Amino acid sequence: MRIGVYPGTFDPITNGHVDILERAICLFDEVIVAIAKDNYKNNLFSFEERIELAKEACKAFPCIRVEAFEGLLVDFVKTQKARAIIRGLRAVSDFEYEFQLAMMNKRLESGIETIFLMAASKYSFLSSSIIKQVAVLDGAVTGLVPIQVEEALKLKVLAEKNVKEE
Amino acid sequence: MRIGVYPGTFDPITNGHVDILERAICLFDEVIVAIAKDNYKNNLFSFEERIELAKEACKAFPCIRVEAFEGLLVDFVKTQKARAIIRGLRAVSDFEYEFQLAMMNKRLESGIETIFLMAASKYSFLSSSIIKQVAVLDGAVTGLVPIQVEEALKLKVLAEKNVKEE
Amino acid sequence: MRIGVYPGTFDPITNGHVDILERAICLFDEVIVAIAKDNYKNNLFSFEERIELAKEACKAFPCIRVEAFEGLLVDFVKTQKARAIIRGLRAVSDFEYEFQLAMMNKRLESGIETIFLMAASKYSFLSSSIIKQVAVLDGAVTGLVPIQVEEALKLKVLAEKNVKEE
Amino acid sequence: MRIGVYPGTFDPITNGHVDILERAICLFDEVIVAIAKDNYKNNLFSFEERIELAKEACKAFPCIRVEAFEGLLVDFVKTQKARAIIRGLRAVSDFEYEFQLAMMNKRLESGIETIFLMAASKYSFLSSSIIKQVAVLDGAVTGLVPIQVEEALKLKVLAEKNVKEE
Amino acid sequence: MRIGVYPGTFDPITNGHVDILERAICLFDEVIVAIAKDNYKNNLFSFEERIELAKEACKAFPCIRVEAFEGLLVDFVKTQKARAIIRGLRAVSDFEYEFQLAMMNKRLESGIETIFLMAASKYSFLSSSIIKQVAVLDGAVTGLVPIQVEEALKLKVLAEKNVKEE
Amino acid sequence: MRIGVYPGTFDPITNGHVDILERAICLFDEVIVAIAKDNYKNNLFSFEERIELAKEACKAFPCIRVEAFEGLLVDFVKTQKARAIIRGLRAVSDFEYEFQLAMMNKRLESGIETIFLMAASKYSFLSSSIIKQVAVLDGAVTGLVPIQVEEALKLKVLAEKNVKEE
Repeated sequence: MRIGVYPGTFDPITNGHVDILERAICLFDEVIVAIAKDNYKNNLFSFEERIELAKEACKAFPCIRVEAFEGLLVDFVKTQKARAIIRGLRAVSDFEYEFQLAMMNKRLESGIETIFLMAASKYSFLSSSIIKQVAVLDGAVTGLVPIQVEEALKLKVLAEKNVKEE
Repeated sequence: MRIGVYPGTFDPITNGHVDILERAICLFDEVIVAIAKDNYKNNLFSFEERIELAKEACKAFPCIRVEAFEGLLVDFVKTQKARAIIRGLRAVSDFEYEFQLAMMNKRLESGIETIFLMAASKYSFLSSSIIKQVAVLDGAVTGLVPIQVEEALKLKVLAEKNVKEE
Repeated sequence: MRIGVYPGTFDPITNGHVDILERAICLFDEVIVAIAKDNYKNNLFSFEERIELAKEACKAFPCIRVEAFEGLLVDFVKTQKARAIIRGLRAVSDFEYEFQLAMMNKRLESGIETIFLMAASKYSFLSSSIIKQVAVLDGAVTGLVPIQVEEALKLKVLAEKNVKEE
Repeated sequence: MRIGVYPGTFDPITNGHVDILERAICLFDEVIVAIAKDNYKNNLFSFEERIELAKEACKAFPCIRVEAFEGLLVDFVKTQKARAIIRGLRAVSDFEYEFQLAMMNKRLESGIETIFLMAASKYSFLSSSIIKQVAVLDGAVTGLVPIQVEEALKLKVLAEKNVKEE
Repeated sequence: MRIGVYPGTFDPITNGHVDILERAICLFDEVIVAIAKDNYKNNLFSFEERIELAKEACKAFPCIRVEAFEGLLVDFVKTQKARAIIRGLRAVSDFEYEFQLAMMNKRLESGIETIFLMAASKYSFLSSSIIKQVAVLDGAVTGLVPIQVEEALKLKVLAEKNVKEE
Repeated sequence: MRIGVYPGTFDPITNGHVDILERAICLFDEVIVAIAKDNYKNNLFSFEERIELAKEACKAFPCIRVEAFEGLLVDFVKTQKARAIIRGLRAVSDFEYEFQLAMMNKRLESGIETIFLMAASKYSFLSSSIIKQVAVLDGAVTGLVPIQVEEALKLKVLAEKNVKEE
């Protein structure tokens, strides 16, 4: 069985991520969405929320599994008996960072390959960061994130405003 | 009347910004320098200082107006009845980030166009960040920023040193 | 009156070009599509055909005029009393070449500005070259070029095949 | 059965191509090296020679098949019942051209995915073009191409010199 | 005597840095590794540790000297009577930032040149940041950093874990 | 004695090339301008003319020598007992091609280093190609090329026009 791992922070999962996943499931028997537990970015959503939103977004695809991981990605990939790390590419700066990661992962574990897929052009400008920037300013993100994510963003932004006002 | 909006943090305004503005006023009847009130960068100058320095730098141009804005840029652009967002381009990494912003703004408000202008090659290495880095180390920034900005930088750096020494 | 010039080979005009033109007419009173007469590329369509196809594609826009030009672009821009050269940006390699052209044109004629617009993301992969490559191999280009261009491409490809077979 | 197609001119096949193939066979049950019959580049090796050299280079891998193709790549991929087009990525300019191709192929045939793999860093500077440039000037290409290709290059360069001297 | 200055944070020095140094000593009579005292990044190693590790890594090269510096780099270069700043180039984003720095340094001190060298392709994915990311997760960095750095990283990571557990 | 080789086609030499040479002579005891005899580009100037124009442009610098070369660049560099190949960098696409060349030259001859210098920002848009494009259309290139090159371009363009008219 061919298993691919799609790692990330997913804070939150966007339609760009889902687009990559729909492409990946043509190539693998199972795709694992691997959500990093500890990372150095300031996340808007908690670890549990990020997993929940990803599970919601992928529930229509039986061959996609959402998992948490800690530590080195290549170690997680090995424990899952996966063959490949899946990454989405958007832009030149993406490409360079991804190249660096892919080379390092190859060095850490030569048996694991990194494959790159390109999101649809309509998602080429999309990232979790820009979604959060827009949502915080009450901008509309309809069509750019799954509907549950849209609702979760609204609640999160509202909660933060209430905290500030108090 | 054609109005263009040139948004940014302007912490502080540089001669590169002024160069873009001089180009933009050939294309619009009025250009609004839109200074973001709340942003996530650690600014050297306060909001009021950034506005004051921009006003000084633009006072020779009657068709340039300096304004503060909060919230989504496209909402501000609409309230000003402007047709276009003006952005300066310098380098490849600029280009990608600008592309992402332009696409998102287009999606948020399809009636507003983003236009890009290129600064003179002598300003192609210039940014507010590098100006601040150099000024903090007592390097000369003459000719790279308006004269009032140069003086404000000196005072600001001096003030920070005094705070440290106390 | 603000006039902008959108120069190129237009061999043939694509929906990406038309998209840029629709954006440009919000910013200018008149936009001139300037088709280069002599150039060093091997064109599929003759100079007259390229003009005809561009005229067809723009006939719904009264403020767009299609013109031929020879010699230095900046000289043509001046004779048209235009203020700006309009260029579409797609990718990083575009960006660098465009930067070089813009700097040279600025040096040749300091009073003329180059402005850059970005095509819709669905056209970000589109160029006249790739259209021709696909059409020559009988691939479908529906939706990527104006309908008259699609028909002209079919006839042109058919004609070339007949020549080969003879 | 999962089949991937690795298309190109292969004029000639290099160790960079072979490296990509070794990575690809971990992901597919069968990988087809698809050699373009008609193309617009001036090839050093004839179509038959390019096929022969690729077959030699891949003969150790039972799951790799070398095939010729004409016409649209996506049509060939469909006739082979393949799911994916495999491409190697090296540099930024590669990336942009590949993005354009991938988008066009997706548009022509939405059921076919393009996946990108990265060659080992020691091959990151390698292309068929630079191999030919060096070989023509009697430079050593040992270790950069399969041994049969190295010999074929020597014979080809020798033959061209004899033609010139006559 | 021709002196070159190789500036940086060196947190910690990697084999990529050492590779650049080995190239630089062919071009200069003396190369100074200039370690920035005050900087705005969160360093893993203290200033003294970074100097110690760099000295260890360079002790085999008599013409390399490790020095600390504060303030403007160009001022340090002048006090050392050096002619050139040496920088390693890896990727496109490096290139742009380096270009900006080089232009600013040229403006601050026109008599000092910046020269760029490229690390071996096997180090093209290497940076102090990725080394630290991997080491913190107990990944192997053997062969990517000098042996003393490898040991120092292990101790540092262990110490941080103990602090957390307490 | 430290010798550097600055190779190219120099069709014709521009002020951007001269700017790089002025930077290089601070770093080497002697700099050789190495003009490629046989190349695959369609040159405007003959081999002898390119050498003559380069000699004129460099005659004020006693430590610059103009030489012709054929065959592999690294072989020429070795016969000159030079330590380094000097290249000018302008843009991202330059960078990638230069990286490929530098890696190949390093592989062909490990004892020769490639060093990169950046031209002044006012020459960042300059290339022999764009100079020729402008000159052919009677555009002014004053200040972008040495004065003898400017005159040679005028004569060459005039001669080509006369040929066409006959």
